Amino acid sequence: MEKNQWTVGVDLGGTSIKMAFINDEGRIIDKWEIPTDLSEKGRFITRDIAKSIEEKLEQKGETKDKLVGLGMGAPGFINFENGSIFEAVNIGWKNYPLQEKMEEAIGLPVAVDNDANLAALGEMWKGAGEGAKDLLCITLGTGVGGGVISNGAIIHGIGGMAGEIGHITSITDGGYTCNCGRKGCLETVASATGIRRLAIEGLEKHTESELYTVFQKQQDLTTKDVFDAARNQDAYALSIVDHVTYHLGLALSNVAILLNFQKLVIGGGVSMAGETLLEPLDRHIKALTLPGVYQGLEIVRATLGNDAGVIGCAWLINKKLNRL
Amino acid sequence: MEKNQWTVGVDLGGTSIKMAFINDEGRIIDKWEIPTDLSEKGRFITRDIAKSIEEKLEQKGETKDKLVGLGMGAPGFINFENGSIFEAVNIGWKNYPLQEKMEEAIGLPVAVDNDANLAALGEMWKGAGEGAKDLLCITLGTGVGGGVISNGAIIHGIGGMAGEIGHITSITDGGYTCNCGRKGCLETVASATGIRRLAIEGLEKHTESELYTVFQKQQDLTTKDVFDAARNQDAYALSIVDHVTYHLGLALSNVAILLNFQKLVIGGGVSMAGETLLEPLDRHIKALTLPGVYQGLEIVRATLGNDAGVIGCAWLINKKLNRL
Repeated sequence: MEKNQWTVGVDLGGTSIKMAFINDEGRIIDKWEIPTDLSEKGRFITRDIAKSIEEKLEQKGETKDKLVGLGMGAPGFINFENGSIFEAVNIGWKNYPLQEKMEEAIGLPVAVDNDANLAALGEMWKGAGEGAKDLLCITLGTGVGGGVISNGAIIHGIGGMAGEIGHITSITDGGYTCNCGRKGCLETVASATGIRRLAIEGLEKHTESELYTVFQKQQDLTTKDVFDAARNQDAYALSIVDHVTYHLGLALSNVAILLNFQKLVIGGGVSMAGETLLEPLDRHIKALTLPGVYQGLEIVRATLGNDAGVIGCAWLINKKLNRL
Repeated sequence: MEKNQWTVGVDLGGTSIKMAFINDEGRIIDKWEIPTDLSEKGRFITRDIAKSIEEKLEQKGETKDKLVGLGMGAPGFINFENGSIFEAVNIGWKNYPLQEKMEEAIGLPVAVDNDANLAALGEMWKGAGEGAKDLLCITLGTGVGGGVISNGAIIHGIGGMAGEIGHITSITDGGYTCNCGRKGCLETVASATGIRRLAIEGLEKHTESELYTVFQKQQDLTTKDVFDAARNQDAYALSIVDHVTYHLGLALSNVAILLNFQKLVIGGGVSMAGETLLEPLDRHIKALTLPGVYQGLEIVRATLGNDAGVIGCAWLINKKLNRL
């Protein structure tokens, strides 16, 4: 392996493109963002990325010889055989040969995967999952996303849709309608959106709660408000946290029974609640899973934040080039 | 690859040991059984297997040169790194170096895995899963067991406990106590034992049902009685089948959402019900999973029956020897 070379990580979103140079130890040398040009169905995106990388190299007094390859995370459903995009609604791509186009634009080997999977690979390589080869990463944000890694590799499934843990059915009777059109998905309970909705809808019956007072002042509630109140032992807030962690714990326990993974890595905005989330979650998982499965399981918070994606990209291209 | 050689498949149970010679196309050349000698904590088992194989070879006018290796399925928890058994309660083994002992006894390369996983590999190679690399095999028998195959390989998990789909929590409130000590496991609902119990416990309220008449005659009910009555449109039997297939479908849908597998292979005694089981199961899975996941999924009955294990053994040792 050539020493002191870099890979490029590219985490493509509908608004901006996060990029980074990453060395062979998985450390970020430099990171930056450019806006995503959605005009003409995204046809300028690969060109913009290539141009930006070349400018950045020049700024740093380096040439393209410094780079061994580029890993890229894209939203949507991906054909992992050839790195093309079946469909990425936010970008406007349909049956778009992303890997081929990016290789043409940059003149380097390129590997492509789904953005949620790459965040999981990043955490596996250099984040909270370090050392584990069997892990589940779950992101509790506006929605609930996930990536499943077994024996060091992402599970993609037949249509690249594996890891959609947010759409596991949690409430079988009378659940809320999810963005997917079904009802009672885990995402309707354990996302920031779901927690806020739960807290607000019960407020009128809990005027004694500090959340009621907060709502009167802000005319809204955040997930942080709920967990702050729970930390203050507010009974209503605690009941919401218990409801959320019970359903999250049930879904995760069932997955753990099936996959017997070593680490459960929890990221996203909701995970900022720390022990106020993790303590009741751990308690529910202990009760709902098999003793032997629980014993082998470690529940940890994600540590890489927004960098997980680009670091996962670096792992992906290094792996493809047999440099790991 | 040497042509016309055989592997030996050995499916070890607490009562008998199923064995077979299998050719390179995965066809069984000959199969036979010997009793399992549980005396002295199972120390004679590997010797008995080796002896029986040598006798069988002689009967067939062949020598050991005909054999390239032996694959073995054992009950219990297995260390897949070295083929040793952490614990097999039925046999009496604890930290037993099975692969090493078997290699010494037979003088051939040996590979060991869990018996449920090998049945799944058998179905993948030559049974209902043929052609699929992402599949879930579930066995609905006295209990409910499973094997998860992703990208052509068994998922073992960190402690070799993956695939315990029978212990996914199905009934969250007031479920029956399972053999594992927890309550409401899928096994308490979707096993032959569970279906029989469900049918008998509601009989007094359904004296109009043909199951009531059958019970009066036999003083017992079987799973077959329940499905036979359902096939006759008996309302009570249909309500039990709906309850069972709803909970089975919910568990399997959640797994499908997570893993996006291509084939769901259903085996075991309960699967003999055929369409009376599969039709309502398919309907529930369609309603409970994501459209894209359902679209890529095929639900099929296992085709190898009791031979799945030994055929999986043959695949395992061929794979280990890079002959596949």
